[in-house]
Amino acid sequence: MPPSLQSYEEVSSSLPMKVVPKKNGVVNGASSLRLEESEKHDLVLRVFRCFIADLCEQFKGGHPGGAMGMAGIGIALWKYAMKYSPSNPNYFNRDRFVLSNGHTCLFQYTFMHLVGYSNMTLDQLRSYHSKRTDSICPGHPEIEIDGIEVTTGPLGQGVANAVGLAMAEKHLAATYNRPNYPVVDNMIFCMIGDACLQEGVALEAISLAGHWRLDNLVIVYDNNQVTCDGSVDLACNEDVNAKMRACGWNVIDVFNGSNNISGVTQALVTARASDKPTFINVRTVIGFGSKLAGDAKTHGAAFGPEDVANIKRTFGMDVDKHFYIPDDVYDFFHEARSRGQDYEWEWNALVDAYSQEYPELSAEFKSRVAGQMPQDWMKYIPAKDSFPTTPTASRKSAGLVCNPLAQNLNNIMVGTADLTPSVNMVWKNKKDFQHPDLKTACGINGDYSGRYIHWGIREHAMASISNGLAAYNKGTILPVTSTFFMFYIYAAAGVRMGALQGLQCIHVATHDSIGTGEDGPTHQPVELAALYRAMPNMLYIRPCDSEETAGAFIAALNAKNTPSIISLSRQNLEQYPAHSSREGVRKGAYVLMEQEDADVTLIGVGAEMCFAVSTKEVLEKEYGIKARVVSFPCQRLFEAQPREYKREVLQYGKGRPIVVIEAYAVNGWERYADAGFAMSSFGHSLPGAKCYDHFGFSGTKIAPKVKALVDEVRKEGIESLRGDFRDLNGALGFKTEH
Amino acid sequence: MPPSLQSYEEVSSSLPMKVVPKKNGVVNGASSLRLEESEKHDLVLRVFRCFIADLCEQFKGGHPGGAMGMAGIGIALWKYAMKYSPSNPNYFNRDRFVLSNGHTCLFQYTFMHLVGYSNMTLDQLRSYHSKRTDSICPGHPEIEIDGIEVTTGPLGQGVANAVGLAMAEKHLAATYNRPNYPVVDNMIFCMIGDACLQEGVALEAISLAGHWRLDNLVIVYDNNQVTCDGSVDLACNEDVNAKMRACGWNVIDVFNGSNNISGVTQALVTARASDKPTFINVRTVIGFGSKLAGDAKTHGAAFGPEDVANIKRTFGMDVDKHFYIPDDVYDFFHEARSRGQDYEWEWNALVDAYSQEYPELSAEFKSRVAGQMPQDWMKYIPAKDSFPTTPTASRKSAGLVCNPLAQNLNNIMVGTADLTPSVNMVWKNKKDFQHPDLKTACGINGDYSGRYIHWGIREHAMASISNGLAAYNKGTILPVTSTFFMFYIYAAAGVRMGALQGLQCIHVATHDSIGTGEDGPTHQPVELAALYRAMPNMLYIRPCDSEETAGAFIAALNAKNTPSIISLSRQNLEQYPAHSSREGVRKGAYVLMEQEDADVTLIGVGAEMCFAVSTKEVLEKEYGIKARVVSFPCQRLFEAQPREYKREVLQYGKGRPIVVIEAYAVNGWERYADAGFAMSSFGHSLPGAKCYDHFGFSGTKIAPKVKALVDEVRKEGIESLRGDFRDLNGALGFKTEH
Repeated sequence: MPPSLQSYEEVSSSLPMKVVPKKNGVVNGASSLRLEESEKHDLVLRVFRCFIADLCEQFKGGHPGGAMGMAGIGIALWKYAMKYSPSNPNYFNRDRFVLSNGHTCLFQYTFMHLVGYSNMTLDQLRSYHSKRTDSICPGHPEIEIDGIEVTTGPLGQGVANAVGLAMAEKHLAATYNRPNYPVVDNMIFCMIGDACLQEGVALEAISLAGHWRLDNLVIVYDNNQVTCDGSVDLACNEDVNAKMRACGWNVIDVFNGSNNISGVTQALVTARASDKPTFINVRTVIGFGSKLAGDAKTHGAAFGPEDVANIKRTFGMDVDKHFYIPDDVYDFFHEARSRGQDYEWEWNALVDAYSQEYPELSAEFKSRVAGQMPQDWMKYIPAKDSFPTTPTASRKSAGLVCNPLAQNLNNIMVGTADLTPSVNMVWKNKKDFQHPDLKTACGINGDYSGRYIHWGIREHAMASISNGLAAYNKGTILPVTSTFFMFYIYAAAGVRMGALQGLQCIHVATHDSIGTGEDGPTHQPVELAALYRAMPNMLYIRPCDSEETAGAFIAALNAKNTPSIISLSRQNLEQYPAHSSREGVRKGAYVLMEQEDADVTLIGVGAEMCFAVSTKEVLEKEYGIKARVVSFPCQRLFEAQPREYKREVLQYGKGRPIVVIEAYAVNGWERYADAGFAMSSFGHSLPGAKCYDHFGFSGTKIAPKVKALVDEVRKEGIESLRGDFRDLNGALGFKTEH
Repeated sequence: MPPSLQSYEEVSSSLPMKVVPKKNGVVNGASSLRLEESEKHDLVLRVFRCFIADLCEQFKGGHPGGAMGMAGIGIALWKYAMKYSPSNPNYFNRDRFVLSNGHTCLFQYTFMHLVGYSNMTLDQLRSYHSKRTDSICPGHPEIEIDGIEVTTGPLGQGVANAVGLAMAEKHLAATYNRPNYPVVDNMIFCMIGDACLQEGVALEAISLAGHWRLDNLVIVYDNNQVTCDGSVDLACNEDVNAKMRACGWNVIDVFNGSNNISGVTQALVTARASDKPTFINVRTVIGFGSKLAGDAKTHGAAFGPEDVANIKRTFGMDVDKHFYIPDDVYDFFHEARSRGQDYEWEWNALVDAYSQEYPELSAEFKSRVAGQMPQDWMKYIPAKDSFPTTPTASRKSAGLVCNPLAQNLNNIMVGTADLTPSVNMVWKNKKDFQHPDLKTACGINGDYSGRYIHWGIREHAMASISNGLAAYNKGTILPVTSTFFMFYIYAAAGVRMGALQGLQCIHVATHDSIGTGEDGPTHQPVELAALYRAMPNMLYIRPCDSEETAGAFIAALNAKNTPSIISLSRQNLEQYPAHSSREGVRKGAYVLMEQEDADVTLIGVGAEMCFAVSTKEVLEKEYGIKARVVSFPCQRLFEAQPREYKREVLQYGKGRPIVVIEAYAVNGWERYADAGFAMSSFGHSLPGAKCYDHFGFSGTKIAPKVKALVDEVRKEGIESLRGDFRDLNGALGFKTEH
C-alpha cells in the first residue's frame, strides 16, 4: 500500500535551512518542484517495474525483485539527489554511486539508460542474461562499463568500496581544496540490501566510516526484509538503526519507501547536511507489483509470463507491449544530460580559476586528476649499494624501499591492519588520515590530508576499502596495505576483487612462511601463496633480499592495472649483493648463481633462498655435486617472459634435475621443477630458525636428498622423473593418516 | 590504581535472587566466600603477574601485557565461575573456555597450571617460546592440548568458535535433556580483546548469537583500549555496549577490572541468569605492574630485566626469585581438582539415573558423547542405480546423497549462508535450529533441537562457528555448511582453522567453475581450488556426476579428522553410470574410460568431465587419435595411493602425453599432466554453456590442440614436453598485457 505522495513543495519547505548552502552540491531541480511531478513519478515507477519484469522474462532469469522494490529510490537518486554527467561518465567531480547489492544491476542499468548514458542503449539493456559477449549488462555491475564505479556482486564489498571512495574524496579535498575553491566536492551514495548488513566486511567498513566521520557517505538501505532463504528474521533480529548509531552514523528512516520518492529525496538532502555518514533505512517491498510481492521467490528468478501480464495490468500498462518506455518517461529525465554538462562546465571553470590562483597546487592536482604518478618516482628507490649487507629482514628492506616513496609521492596512501610496529611502513613525519577533530588517547592525530591509515584489526575491509581508494579515479591514489601474510586470507575476497577490477594496489605481506616462528601454525602461511599465484592478474612476489625487495616494489609500481602482494620475512635474511638483481625480479626468475656443467638446478624462493644456497654449498663440498641456483620471486612475471629466456634460466634441455626449495605447499612448482623440498603439513610453534630445522630446512638435511635424485638421474636418465614429481620432504599432507 | 576490593559477602548478597536456582550450575564456593579471600587474591595477582613477566623474559619474547591485565579475570573464572575438572579435562559437561585473544595464551596456561591440569607443569610453562618440540605451550592455544577447547590466534575466530560451542550445547540440551535430567548443561566463556571486536567474523558471529539468544554464552571483554598500533581510538570510536545491545546481547560493565575480582565474578554469575548472551565489558590495564603499563609496547615483547625487577618490586616480590609460585597460591586453587571430580561424579550419577528412566534416549546420548556416528550410516547413501541417468546438476546430486543422511543421522547439522533454494540441502520435515520463541515472518520456526541452520549471509562465521560445533566434543556433531564455492573465499580463514584443528566438517560448495554462468566473474571461482588443494589436511573433491557425488560424501564422512569441500555444479551434468565409481573417488582418481594403446590420457574433472569425454570422441572421430579418460576428483586422496596405482592410472611409463581439462587456473595440475586446457583469466558473465564456449571449452575446440600435442610427441618424443608445460588455452594470465 503505497502512501500518498508528499508534494515537493512540502519536501522543499520542510528541509532544514542549513541544508541550502551546505557542502557538496545541490538538490537537482529542487527549486522547480511542482505538485504534478507526482503523476510523472507514478508513470516512471509503473514503466520501470514492467520494464524490469520484461528484461528478466526475456531469458527466464536474472534478479527482478530488488530492482522493482527500489524503483522509487532510483528516481530520488538520479532525478533529484545525485550530481553526475551522463555525457561524460568519468567527469571527475561527480558523485559516486555504488550498487553493493549488485544482483539488482538492472536497477542501475535502467536508470543509466533513462538519464541518458549513451552506452546504455535499449539494445544493450536487452542483452542482460543473453549470449552476447559484447553485452555491457552483465549479471553484476562491472567497473569496465562507463558509468559504473566499481564491480560489485560478492555481498558487502560495495559498502567497503564506498567507504574507500568517500575516504578518497575527503583526502583529495583536504589536500587540494582552498577557500572558495572546492575542486573536490562530491558525495558517495551506496545502495545496499539486507545481505550487505550481515557480511563481516561491511560491518568492518561501517565501523571505520563512523570512526572517520565520513559525512560525504550515504548508505541507502533497501530494507525489504527478504533474502534468498525468506524472511530476514530467520537469521537476523538485530536493531540495525541502533547498531548504526553505535557505530557513529546518522540514521534516517523512510517508511513505505517503495513509492515514497519525496521521503527518500528528503532523506538524501538531509544526509548531505549531516556531519556523520548517513544511513537511510528505506522500507520497500521486494518484487513490488508482482503477485509474489514481498516473497523471496521474486529475488532471483523471472516471474513467468502470467505474472508479468499481471504486473502490467496492476500498473495499468498494456500487457502486449514489451520493453515499453514512453516518451514521457524519457522527458522526465531529459534534463539530466544538460544538467550534467552544467556541472562539468562549472567544475572546469572552477578549476581554471583555481589554476590562476594556485598554479603549483593546481598543476599537481591536474596531474593527480590525470591519474599520473610523478615521472621521477624511480629516483626514490634506493640503490643497491645503499642497502645493508648484513642479514636483514625483508620486512625491514620493504621499509627502506617504500618509506621514501611514501614520503615523496602524494599518490601513495599506506595503511596497516594494526601492525605498525611490525610492518615497517612508517616514514618520517608521516601524518595519519583521521578526522581533524579526533584526539586519540595516545596522542597520534592527523587530518584528512594524512596518508597513513590505521585500519584497526580489519584485514578484509582494509583490502576492500583500498579497492575503493584506487577506483576513485584510476591512478590518483595508490593504496598500500600491510599485515602479516597469513591474514591476507581474511582479506582474500577483497584482494581478489582488486585483481578482477585491475586496480593497482600493493599489499605488503610480512611474516611469511614458517620462519615467522613462535606464533605457530595459525600464523604460518604454508598454503596461501598457492591461491595468489593462481589468481589471475595478481603478482605474488617473494623477494630474497633487499635488492630483490626493491625489484618487487618496482614491478608493483609499474603494474598499473594489477595488484601485487609483496611477501616478506619477519626474520633476518642473508643478502646477496654480488648476485641478486632488481632487474631479475622484473623477469620473475633469473640465475642467481651460475655454475658450468651443473648437475642440478636449485630454485630458491624468498626467505628460503638461504637453504638453496647452503644446499649448493653442501652438495659441492660433501658430494662433489655442482649446483646452480635460480632465484624465483614471481611465477606470473616469469610466465610473461619469452620461451627462450625461460628455458635458458631453467636449462631444461640439459637433462639435469630441478629442485625447488620453499617452505610452502609445493603445489604449482611442478611446472618448473622435478622435485620439491617443501611443506606437506601445517607449521609448528617454534622459534623461526628452529622451526625451519624441525621441518628439515637446512643445507645439510636437504643436500643428501638432492644427491640421491642426482644419482638416480645419472643412472636412469631424466626420463625417470617424468610424471613422478618428488616430494623430498613428505607428500601432500593430511593431518592424520587415512 | 586498583580499587578497594568489594568483599565477597557483598558480591553474594547483591546477587539477584533468581540466580540461585538458575540454569547451568553454581558459583564455585560462593557460599564460603570470606573477607580474607581478598588477601589471597592480592597474592595470586602479584605472583601471577611476576610469573608472566618471567616467562616472557626467559626467551625475550611473547605476549605478556594482556595476560597481566587479565589476571583478575582469570581468578574470577577459574576460582569462582567455571565448572571444569582438571583431572579429566574432557569431562563432557564441563564449561568451555575459549581464549579468542589467543596471543595471551600464558594467561590460560598459567591458570591451568595453578588449578591442577597435570599436563601443564611448571617445566612445560617454561617451554613457552623455547626450542622444545615437545612443548605444549605454543604461541597460541592449540586444540591438541588437553584442556584447550579450540585453537585460536587469528583474531575473531575464537568468538565464532564460542558461538558454535554454545549452539552445540543448546542443541544437545534440547535434544537429550529431560525434566530433572539436565545431562547437557554447561556454559561457554569466551575471552576477547579489543581486536576481536573489530574483526568481521566476530561481528557476524555476535549478530547470530544475539539472534539465537544463546544465553549460555558469555563474552568477557578485556577492554584495555590498546592494540599494536597504540590506543584503540586510533581506529575505533564506537559505542561497543550499545552495539552489543543492538545485536541482542545483555551487557554488564565492570570498571577497574584489573583487580576487581568481585566485580567480574558478580558479572559472571549474573550472566548465568541472563536470557540472552552476555557481554561483560571489563576495563583493564595492559601490562599492569610494568612501568609501561597501559602502553602498546607491553603487548608483544618481553619487558627487559630492569622492568621485570621493577614489576617484582612494585608487587613486593623478591627480585631474584624467578618463576616463583608460593604454596599459598597453589593452596588457593587446591580445591579445583576435587571440585571438578565432584562435578564429574554428579554428572555420571545423573547420566546413570537418566539411563534408567530413558534407556533408548540415553543409549543414543552415550553414543553421541562417545563421538560415534550410527554404524549403519552407509545404508543411507543411495545406490548407483537410484540416480537419474539424465543430465543432473551435481548440486542436485548432493541433495540426493546428503538429504537422507541428514534426515536419519542426528549427528549431522546442516546449514546454508542464505542459499536454501540453490544448494538443495533441505530434507523432508527438516526442523530449523532456532530459539523456540522465535516466530519468523515467513512462518518457518524451529527450536534448538532443529538441525537446519540459517546462517544468514555470513559465510565466514558459518565456517568458523561450524568449527565450534565440531569441537564441542569430537564426533558428536558433524556440521555441513553450504554456499556457492566462490564464497568460500570469504570463509577461507575459518575453513583453514578447521583443517588445522582436524575438525571434520563438510562444506557443500555449489555453483563451481565458470559454468555458474550469468552471475559473472565475481561469482566464478577460477583460482580458489588452488588454495584448497594446497591446504594441508583438506579434501577438495570435485565429483563429475551423481555416483561420484556419493563417493565424495563417503570420503568426507570417513575423514574423521579432516574437513572436506565437495565442489558442485549449478548446471546439469552428463551422467556416466557405466563408468563412474564411488570407489574411484575414494582413490582420488581412476580410469573412467580405458583405451588400449591410447595416444593420450585426458584428465577430466568435475563439471568439466563432459569436455574430456567430448574431446576423446572428437579425437577419435576426426583425427583417429585414441584417448583414455581419467576422472580426477581429489588430488589429496590420489596422493595417498600407492605409487604403483598412481602410475597405472596415469600411465607415465608409456610416453604418451597427459592433458588436464578444467575451467580453473591450472596451477598444481602440472604434477600430473604435461598440458592443460584451463583458465588463464577471470570468467565472464554469460549463460553457463555459452561461457564455456566463450573460453573454448568444447570437444571440437580442444581436440585440435590435443592433436597438435600428440603429433609433436610422435615426432619429437615425450621428452620435448619436459619442463615445458603447455597451456593449451592461454598462459598464466594478466588482466592486461605487461
